[in-house]
Order: sequence, then structure tokens, then C-alpha cells
Amino acid sequence: MTEQGAPQAGTNLDQAGTNLDPWYHHYAERAGGLRASEVRALFAVASRPEVVSLAGGMPYVAALPQDLVINAMDRVMVEQGAVALQYGSGQGVPALREQILEVMALEGIRANADDIVVTTGSQHALELVSKLFLDPGDVVLSEGPSYVTAMVIFKSYQAEVEHVPMDEHGLIPEALRERIASLKAAGKTMKFLYTIPSFHNPAGVTLSWERRLEILEIAKANDILVLEDNPYGLLYFDQPAPDAMRSVEQDGVVYLGTFSKTLAPGFRVGWALAPHAIREKLVLANEAAVLSPSSFSQLVISEYLSTADWKGQINTFRGVYHERKNAMLSALDEYLPELSWTNPNGGFYVWVTLPEQLDSKAMLPRAVKELVAYTPGTAFFADGDGRQNMRLSFCYPTPENIRVGIRRLATVIRGELDLLDTFAGTFTDTGVLSSIEDRRRFSAPPPNIS
Amino acid sequence: MTEQGAPQAGTNLDQAGTNLDPWYHHYAERAGGLRASEVRALFAVASRPEVVSLAGGMPYVAALPQDLVINAMDRVMVEQGAVALQYGSGQGVPALREQILEVMALEGIRANADDIVVTTGSQHALELVSKLFLDPGDVVLSEGPSYVTAMVIFKSYQAEVEHVPMDEHGLIPEALRERIASLKAAGKTMKFLYTIPSFHNPAGVTLSWERRLEILEIAKANDILVLEDNPYGLLYFDQPAPDAMRSVEQDGVVYLGTFSKTLAPGFRVGWALAPHAIREKLVLANEAAVLSPSSFSQLVISEYLSTADWKGQINTFRGVYHERKNAMLSALDEYLPELSWTNPNGGFYVWVTLPEQLDSKAMLPRAVKELVAYTPGTAFFADGDGRQNMRLSFCYPTPENIRVGIRRLATVIRGELDLLDTFAGTFTDTGVLSSIEDRRRFSAPPPNIS
Repeated sequence: MTEQGAPQAGTNLDQAGTNLDPWYHHYAERAGGLRASEVRALFAVASRPEVVSLAGGMPYVAALPQDLVINAMDRVMVEQGAVALQYGSGQGVPALREQILEVMALEGIRANADDIVVTTGSQHALELVSKLFLDPGDVVLSEGPSYVTAMVIFKSYQAEVEHVPMDEHGLIPEALRERIASLKAAGKTMKFLYTIPSFHNPAGVTLSWERRLEILEIAKANDILVLEDNPYGLLYFDQPAPDAMRSVEQDGVVYLGTFSKTLAPGFRVGWALAPHAIREKLVLANEAAVLSPSSFSQLVISEYLSTADWKGQINTFRGVYHERKNAMLSALDEYLPELSWTNPNGGFYVWVTLPEQLDSKAMLPRAVKELVAYTPGTAFFADGDGRQNMRLSFCYPTPENIRVGIRRLATVIRGELDLLDTFAGTFTDTGVLSSIEDRRRFSAPPPNIS
Repeated sequence: MTEQGAPQAGTNLDQAGTNLDPWYHHYAERAGGLRASEVRALFAVASRPEVVSLAGGMPYVAALPQDLVINAMDRVMVEQGAVALQYGSGQGVPALREQILEVMALEGIRANADDIVVTTGSQHALELVSKLFLDPGDVVLSEGPSYVTAMVIFKSYQAEVEHVPMDEHGLIPEALRERIASLKAAGKTMKFLYTIPSFHNPAGVTLSWERRLEILEIAKANDILVLEDNPYGLLYFDQPAPDAMRSVEQDGVVYLGTFSKTLAPGFRVGWALAPHAIREKLVLANEAAVLSPSSFSQLVISEYLSTADWKGQINTFRGVYHERKNAMLSALDEYLPELSWTNPNGGFYVWVTLPEQLDSKAMLPRAVKELVAYTPGTAFFADGDGRQNMRLSFCYPTPENIRVGIRRLATVIRGELDLLDTFAGTFTDTGVLSSIEDRRRFSAPPPNIS
């Protein structure tokens, strides 16, 4: 018997695909956690050039002078070609690991190159740490909202993601304490706290120094490992983020870094800095997964760091992204003053809160039809929350295109509100909008995050 | 209470390391499957330049003209720099996937580029397939001996590896049938048959065409997926290997290929060709693990394949490895005629059988002291078998160094036999050695493999 309203066999493509897979019953239980994003098909459409995409997290690599990269590559091939083309160590090139220490020192981290494992982007470090630690049913604590592809990994190892709320100073320590207590009471095993303390993806907020210390203490007291993911830390605008959490706590933090945002993601080079015993296991897991990270990519980056003004290049990136953030916020101010949003001091993202009546996921197809794309807030919650939010990325489009995109978004949102107004008959411009306008103060927690 | 003979606390380094790890009780159950190879420390010593290493599987990348690579890199950066430096698709660059079809066509495979997933070396394809399919307690069937780092992955997902014996024509179908029957009777779930049909690592043998067909039928009849790992297929010496198993069976085979041996491993680019539904899940797993494989590496390889005589380059590699295999076999003939070994028609490895009294693992430190290294046979069995075997690689050292290495190995083996002779008092040269010499016929199954 078919439930009323359920699709008939053959009418649902997913169902049909499933039935056609002769290996359907052979997959591991964990494979159930690997699902295509609901908005994946739409993003394929959104990648058409006429669409202004405020959806992706692609860095603006055109701001990197190609000569710098070509020169580094050519020198690597001429001077170390046989090494670059060969398998390498599962832990990564020693010279690069020494240079990574210099990068991390900019955020207060003192460490030993022996405790670094180079990975295929910091994404792969996340995967390896998850493989090492997560048993089915374990809990990962994370900010709500959180980085979408981290949550995909946690779920792929059958862990449960428990969100802890944020406000404009980041994760709220008291909320973390309470959540840990209730999860303990429920008999749950909490393996780690996954956090993006600086220029959060997607929320755009930064964890204050006082809270960093407090959260480290909470984690320590509860024997929970902190997984500090810091892809954006060096891309600040007005003033640097507080030092990394790893700068004051070695034994309780696995720190993840990457060259994807400060250089280029196409090389796929990131790293984990881990307590020694964990680092040993990470190397074994890395070897099992890929034998060794790309020697070629590592040597090119090492050569670039040795010979180019990489700190100056990061300053260039900071200027580019700062300008784009300003363009986005002034366009929001101009075209969508009735919304509220975060004001990031670095990174790639603004987190927008819509009027209560709107649903960012339901609205997305209409936005794409108006040639603008964003990521619905639901993507960043494990529990279906986030319908009233959207993430807007200012990293990739030009300031001009950002303005165009926000203008189109305003058309979509106005259209949605008008439609609701017409049908509901209870909605008035002056009523809802003015009350939302009152809340649009960046110094106060955006209502969706707190 | 300490068991008699057990090390005291602090006397065993592993034990001490364990006690010092504050996160020791936090690892996932599967992390227990990730162990350092027993010979790992020794291999660090063996990488000193004065040691002739017959242990590794490093391709001889010096046979690749560096100009070809530099030109490809420079063109990629000039013509497609912004794409090369950026994130890409989780499935891999479409143009490269089309070119991979041409590579696979050389071994009889007809496929669709849409069913290919580009991975970070074929090692990562192995990892992803394992993550998708293996639940704890599942069985993976594989040749005995088998590729060491494949077994590490299977164990890291808590699967059991069951070896099926080989002879000089590869995996023995009748033995496979029997093993499947007994595992079924024991209530085991067999997820796949992992096989290296051409120029096997470490055994050096090739599965005959008739057996390929028979084994595909056995797998199909028993609903077991075949994981065909083919890194060496194009590196044949006198005549090509039979066509790939995937050439006659699409739905039941996941095929793994790589550019590590036909071009260079430093780029970390391999691929999986999979039935459509499995391919979809592999893309999701790939995205979760690394977001996307390196755009830069993929575009350089694509450019190389478009503009260089890549088939001619593979012929060059074939010539290099053929010469080295001949050097190894003639040195074995000259210096160690009392042993038996396989005679590979391609690939990188010779599998050697020692006189029964010898233990390849116990002998390794003495070999390294004599400045020659090999891989003990035990590394290639999940069950401790293989003490009477060693894998000798002819891929990396020059023919001259191969001769030097085998001469040193002969010194070590003679020394061992003399020692045994002295102590046992029952061993005579004429007795054991001549009987072994009788068995040294390549057309007959080496006793250790059959």
C-alpha cells in the first residue's frame, strides 16, 4: 500500500535510481550518511555565467599574480623535479612543515614541525580526524550554523551533530556548558567540539579571546577534544582575530590550516597540527588514504613561500575581500534595509536573517530564475533549522556584481513578501518591516544566531 | 601483576607511548586497525643512499623528460590559470575523464566518461570504495599475497581479509569457489573481491584470460563486487596482459586506474570507473573527503596527454623496467640459483621464495646491515603468512645497482644458511639446495604462491 501523497514507484527519480542499483543492499551502513545536497541540482544551474552567485566559497584566485606561481613551478621542476614527481612522506615535505610554523606563528601558535601532518586540503584533515575518532552514535558539538561539508563528514561516520548557539561574539560558553550537561545526562559520548573561531563559515562572526579561553576550559573539564578549523584567520579586515585557540592549549586541540584561501585551493594542500600521539595516527590514516600528499603541490607551495612576498600577497587578498564585503553591506543597506545581517571582520561570508514569513530554501528557485544564487541557511544545520537565513558570499564576484546580485535578491524578496501579503492579507509594510529594521544593529546579536 | 616475560611499564616504547596519550580512550574502534608497519623503522634506515633498496615501489620518474612536464604546466598556467588554481568538480575535470577513456581503451575497456571519478591517486579510490562498502566484520577476498596498503585500508574499516591462493596464472578459480563456499557456510558477508590481475603486486604474476572470465562468473553467481586494481597493466614487457576484467563486465566491476606509474605519482591522480549508482556515491564520498581532487594536477596531466607522445613515453618506461627485470633475474640466476622466483611479464616486482629454514622478516635487519633492503613476505599477508618470501622491486634502482643489491642479498642469505647449518648440524648444501634448484622453473607454480 502506498501512503497517501507518497510518490508512486517510478515517479520519484531517487527511488528509481535506488531500484536500479544492483549493489543497493551491499553498501556499508555509514554510506547512508552520504547524501547529495538538496540544492545541488540548482547550483548546477546557478553556475551559468549570467547568474550572480553569492553561493560559493571560491577564493578570488585572480588576485594572485600568475608569474609568482609559474616561477615557483619552474624552479621546482628544474631544481627538484625528480622529488616533485615522486611519492613522498605520508606526513608531508619537512621544509614545508617548517614554513607552516611561520604561517601559524602569525596567529600566536608555537609548535614543532614534527607535529604537523600535511593533508589534501584541510578538508582531508577533517576526514582523517573523523575517521580516527568517530564511532557510530558519537556526538560532535559544533556551532549552529556550521560548515556544511564538515557535517557531511561527521554524518558519514554515523556521528550526531549537536549545534550550540552563537551570538555576535561567537559560540556562547554558557550554552556549551548546558548542552554538554544535557548530553552527558543522556549518556552520549562527545568526541569533539568542532569550531571555526575566526570569521565563521557561514555566520561571519569571531569568537572573542575571553570566550576562547573559557571554551578551552569547558572542553578540558569535560575531556572533549577541540577541533579548531581556521581557514580564514589571516584574512581579517580592520584588525586581526584573537590568537588561535591552539596558541594557549596544545594537548586538547587539533588545529586545521590550509593554503586554499591564502594562496590557492587548486593545489589541495592543508594541514593538521595535533598532539603527538594523535599526529602519529593521523600519519598512518593519511598513508592509508592517499599514500602521500602531492609532492609536486607541496614543493611548489614551499618554493612560493621561500621566494615570494607571501605576507604581502595575503594583504592583497585582505584588501580585495574587504572591498567586497563593504560592497555587499552597502548594497544590503541600500536595497534590503528591512533585513538583518552579520558584519564580518574577515573571511568570506555574511549571514542574513530574513523576515519570519520567508523560507530561504523555498525561495531559492525563484532567486535563480532572477539570476542570483545564495546558500539557504538550512544547509548549515544538521537539524533542519535555518529556513529564515541565507549565507551570502562576497569572496568571488566583483563589487559591481555583488551590487547587481543584491539588487536582484531584493526583487525576489520583495516579490515574496508581496505575494505573502496578498494571500495572507494580514501583513503590512509598516508593521513587520519597521520592527525588523529596529533589530538591524550589528553590535547586537542577530536574532537568528543568538 | 605482570605476566612473566611481559615488559615492565616503561620498558616498552609502544606501551609508554600509549600511556602518554591522553586521548587514548577516545579513538574510534576502527582506529585499532591503523598500525605502523613492523618494518617501518627499518625502512627509514634503508632510505640512506648507501643502501640498495629493492623494497619500495617508486617508479623511475627520471625516465620522464622534464621538459614535457614543464611545458604542460606552463601552458596550463598561461591558458587556464584561474581554473587550475581553483576548486573543481568532485568528480574530476571532464576533459581529463574523456582522456582516461583513451587510456583504458588500450586494455579493452569501453566506458562513459560520466562513470569515471578522478581521485587523489588510485589509493584514494580504494579508500573511498572501502568507506562506501565495508561494515565491521565484512570480508574482503583478495589474492594471497596482496597489496599491503589495500589491506591496511580494509582493516581500517574493520573488515577481514581472506586470502585466496595463486599460481603462475594468477588467482586460482577453484580455490576462490571453495573459499566463498566455506565463508558462506560460516555466515560471513563478502563485500568484494580485491584483485590485481595484471603484473601482480607483490607476486609478479598475471591472471590468464580464461581465469578472468571464470572469476567474473564466480563473483556474479555469488553477488560479490570485483574491485579490479590495475596500476601496472600498460607496463608489460614481451606481450600485453589480457584485456581488463572490466572490458567484459560493467555492472559487477569497480575498476581502478592511475597515472602514478605511467606518468608520475607526485601529482596524485588516479581514478575509479564504477557502475553508475556506485559512481554517484563515490563522488559524494570524494567531495566529503577532499572537496575536489587537485584541479592543477588534473589539468597538467590533461595537457600532457593532449600534447605529448604519452604512448611513446609508456613504451620508454616499459623498456626501462624490462631491462631492470632482466638485470634482476640474471643476477638472481648468478648469485642465488638455489632460490625460486616469479618471472613477471610486466610491472615492478619479483616474488622470491627462500629455503624453508629462512625467515625473511627476521633476516631483514641483517640485510640492511649489508646495505640491501627488500620487503619481507609477511607484509603482504593479513594472517602472518609469507615468512619464506620476499618482494624484490626492480623499478627504481639502476641495473648496476640491482646487481649489487642481489650480490649483497646473496651474502646475507649464504650467511644465514651457514649459521643455521652450523647450529642445526643437520643441513647440507647438496641436500636442501639441489632440491630447491629442481623447483626453480618459472613455468611451474612457485611453491609459495600455489
